[in-house]
Amino acid sequence: ILMSLYCNRISYLFINFALGSRYVSKTATKSVSEFEYDAPSMKTAVPGPKSQELLRQLGEIQNVGAVHFFCNYEESRGNYLVDVDGNRMLDVYTQISSIPIGYNHPALMKVMTNPNNVSTFVNRPALGILPPENFPDKLIESLLSIAPSGMRRVQTMACGSCSNENAFKTMFIWYRNKERGYANPSEHEVDTCMINQSPGCPDLSILSFMGAFHGRTLGCLATTHSKAIHKLDIPSFDWPIAPFPKLQYPLEEFVRENAQEEARCLEEVEDLIVKWRQKGKPVAGIVIEPIQAEGGDNHASPDFFSKLRNIARKHGCAFHVDEVQTGGGTTGKFWGHEHWGLDDPADVVSFSKKLLTGGYYHRDELKPDKPYRIFNTWMGDPSKNLFLSEVLNVIRRENLLEVVTRSGKALLQGLYTLQTQYPHILSRARGQGTFCAIDACNDATRDSIMIKARNKGLFMGSCGEKTIRFRPALVFKEYHVHQLLNILNDVLAEHK
Amino acid sequence: ILMSLYCNRISYLFINFALGSRYVSKTATKSVSEFEYDAPSMKTAVPGPKSQELLRQLGEIQNVGAVHFFCNYEESRGNYLVDVDGNRMLDVYTQISSIPIGYNHPALMKVMTNPNNVSTFVNRPALGILPPENFPDKLIESLLSIAPSGMRRVQTMACGSCSNENAFKTMFIWYRNKERGYANPSEHEVDTCMINQSPGCPDLSILSFMGAFHGRTLGCLATTHSKAIHKLDIPSFDWPIAPFPKLQYPLEEFVRENAQEEARCLEEVEDLIVKWRQKGKPVAGIVIEPIQAEGGDNHASPDFFSKLRNIARKHGCAFHVDEVQTGGGTTGKFWGHEHWGLDDPADVVSFSKKLLTGGYYHRDELKPDKPYRIFNTWMGDPSKNLFLSEVLNVIRRENLLEVVTRSGKALLQGLYTLQTQYPHILSRARGQGTFCAIDACNDATRDSIMIKARNKGLFMGSCGEKTIRFRPALVFKEYHVHQLLNILNDVLAEHK
Repeated sequence: ILMSLYCNRISYLFINFALGSRYVSKTATKSVSEFEYDAPSMKTAVPGPKSQELLRQLGEIQNVGAVHFFCNYEESRGNYLVDVDGNRMLDVYTQISSIPIGYNHPALMKVMTNPNNVSTFVNRPALGILPPENFPDKLIESLLSIAPSGMRRVQTMACGSCSNENAFKTMFIWYRNKERGYANPSEHEVDTCMINQSPGCPDLSILSFMGAFHGRTLGCLATTHSKAIHKLDIPSFDWPIAPFPKLQYPLEEFVRENAQEEARCLEEVEDLIVKWRQKGKPVAGIVIEPIQAEGGDNHASPDFFSKLRNIARKHGCAFHVDEVQTGGGTTGKFWGHEHWGLDDPADVVSFSKKLLTGGYYHRDELKPDKPYRIFNTWMGDPSKNLFLSEVLNVIRRENLLEVVTRSGKALLQGLYTLQTQYPHILSRARGQGTFCAIDACNDATRDSIMIKARNKGLFMGSCGEKTIRFRPALVFKEYHVHQLLNILNDVLAEHK
Repeated sequence: ILMSLYCNRISYLFINFALGSRYVSKTATKSVSEFEYDAPSMKTAVPGPKSQELLRQLGEIQNVGAVHFFCNYEESRGNYLVDVDGNRMLDVYTQISSIPIGYNHPALMKVMTNPNNVSTFVNRPALGILPPENFPDKLIESLLSIAPSGMRRVQTMACGSCSNENAFKTMFIWYRNKERGYANPSEHEVDTCMINQSPGCPDLSILSFMGAFHGRTLGCLATTHSKAIHKLDIPSFDWPIAPFPKLQYPLEEFVRENAQEEARCLEEVEDLIVKWRQKGKPVAGIVIEPIQAEGGDNHASPDFFSKLRNIARKHGCAFHVDEVQTGGGTTGKFWGHEHWGLDDPADVVSFSKKLLTGGYYHRDELKPDKPYRIFNTWMGDPSKNLFLSEVLNVIRRENLLEVVTRSGKALLQGLYTLQTQYPHILSRARGQGTFCAIDACNDATRDSIMIKARNKGLFMGSCGEKTIRFRPALVFKEYHVHQLLNILNDVLAEHK
């Protein structure tokens, strides 16, 4: 019954969105992968009674204030997340944008059942001292096959925060080596570093942007400025924070205004670099997201990034592009920075989430001069590299970057239509690939839309103050877009 | 041929170490687990030609200065690590102390082949928002079944550094909530925290000890003081650093001297707490390892820790025991702090390595007051909890804590004998369980002994300036101890 309900909705949608989207006709020939479901199917409000009981149990052990519901991952398939109450939702948040090719993809199941892989899961090595035989090969076939332009070196890490922390360290080490002319450190430096004092622990800084999110460990957190709840009560560093451009959308319609805004921000960046140098806390590196995600899906133009990269070069700062959320194909290119069209886009590019392993690439010049400077026990996890290799195979075999580009266009077009239809509720639709977002008129409305949509089988994420963010997997096809738009349209139509 | 060579050595050892160790007789009836090898077996010097070729390949991608050799994890078994050149070594370093029950333990292989577990590996959830159905149960049967005294709450994390970073954050949040009387933060606090400034980002500190190692991300690194190479060129915090007692070994023979030294350090701790409060950077927490590992295997008495815990309480500082290396059974008790005999040993206990997942326990009082204060994308990895459950089953079924205690006694006894035999080379044998160490006369001698031992099939780790550290798995039996001592004795006998 529920399925036919949704099929009706899809026909309805067909009519509703046919205008202005040349892809809608494909909905009719929907090519559901054999392992996926057809549509959402809801049995209870979410969280349902089972989720609520489990919430109570987990609440005895942890703060569960952020838990939405409990999942049945065994039963989840492709774009559909199944919860413990048997509700099946179209998932366009994908574990905070970290599921690359949907749930239980058959290619990933095979990694698990291949007996050659068992040992990689069971014996987690200390990669920095005792790598497995196939480690160089696996890096070459996975991470190096997608290396950003100009980068041939990569260091794996366990998570996004560790990736950024170690990327920062790499930039500090590079900067100080430059400053001391690649000579050995003085005895005074060696002595003072042991007690956290300058010059051994120098007063260097990383320049970041308002609205940025680069993680929550203490180094990363000093460059994160998206929400107070992340930062309150945690000691930090006196590092410079530049304004990130506040652009008007759609970008094509505000080219001149946006260029002015970007110029203002770039000027401020240069001022801060000079000011912090004068303060005795020189900027060793600039860190930025290609699209600010957690901070509210804020975009900037290729021209902005290209000029920022030049400012970094001019002032001798390393340029670190944080692709933890933008990386992995979700913008329609494998890396967000590819949209800038630069041969030398960055000195460091960090990743995690959809790449399943954390880590960062860097240019040769930034390689650590000595062992044990960038180091920890595990240095990543080779079992994640196994999955990543297979994810990359699927992306290539199924042309998923093209799928993302196509679905992204349909999604953005649909969001434009919705905001035209509901101008009192929605505005500022924006996106690249399926990395899309739209603002509600305020946070209460945003939250209410999200809850209502969830109860109709659409699970979305939020970001910024009043933004809904769409972060589907790369296997999100056009007919999924139409399911999404259809449910959203229903919610908005009912909204007072 | 090689095997018989080692059998001869074991007989030799039998004679050599029979005196003073009541367990030696068991060597004769060695009960090798069915899945393990009998003895080391060496084919080349280490690193062999295959390792050297792989080193060259990996060197194109990463700094390989810390890589010892490449491993064949498929062929490794129990206490024996096999390298790519077919060398089989008795491994008493176990991936920097992170392999709990040896390589390819059949119980762990079964986790992989159980079809019920596949989904847990393939679909890594964002645990903080969408936990799997069995998450509370799995926590109860794994981490909570070994919770330290007085602690019923646990937060998983991906690695040791993230565990400590988030434990620090937990203490900062707790401390500030106390200071503001559990009221909501002021608008000024909310505003200033976004730009890294006080009072929102307050000038709080963590007190740590010289010689400590708590990780290498920027927050952790500010409490790490073991080697300059870890800290050089990385900005840090002005946080207080107390002296860790420099004890004389064996502890039983220097009770009075050691008590004096510990009293001196405790006095310094109190002075620093007062001084930093006056500086406007109050100590929110004290962090300490039950045995300083990376810093050179430095011990302190239960009395020292008990008094330190009281000092923390007296001054309103949280007390954080970092069990990343000491946890998991290696000292003969599951946690190093259990040797102190305290009902309320700590406010926070962090772990990683042998527990396969990172994380920390904390007392109820320190639970975060709001969601998203302690948060990241993955918040651990439930597939590691699956392995941990099985490891705990094996520890219980095979009485591995008793095995560790027995093997540890034999090992320490053997080290005492060796340092008596070679007083010009070895000194300061010390240990708890199999968490043992011995000093060489200098770093060059230490390094030479380690390389020679490795070429005879014994792979050990180092720490501090001139220390050899022993970190075998929990399945390290007495006959393994004798293999170890036998090889070490051969190396020392040959040493000029």
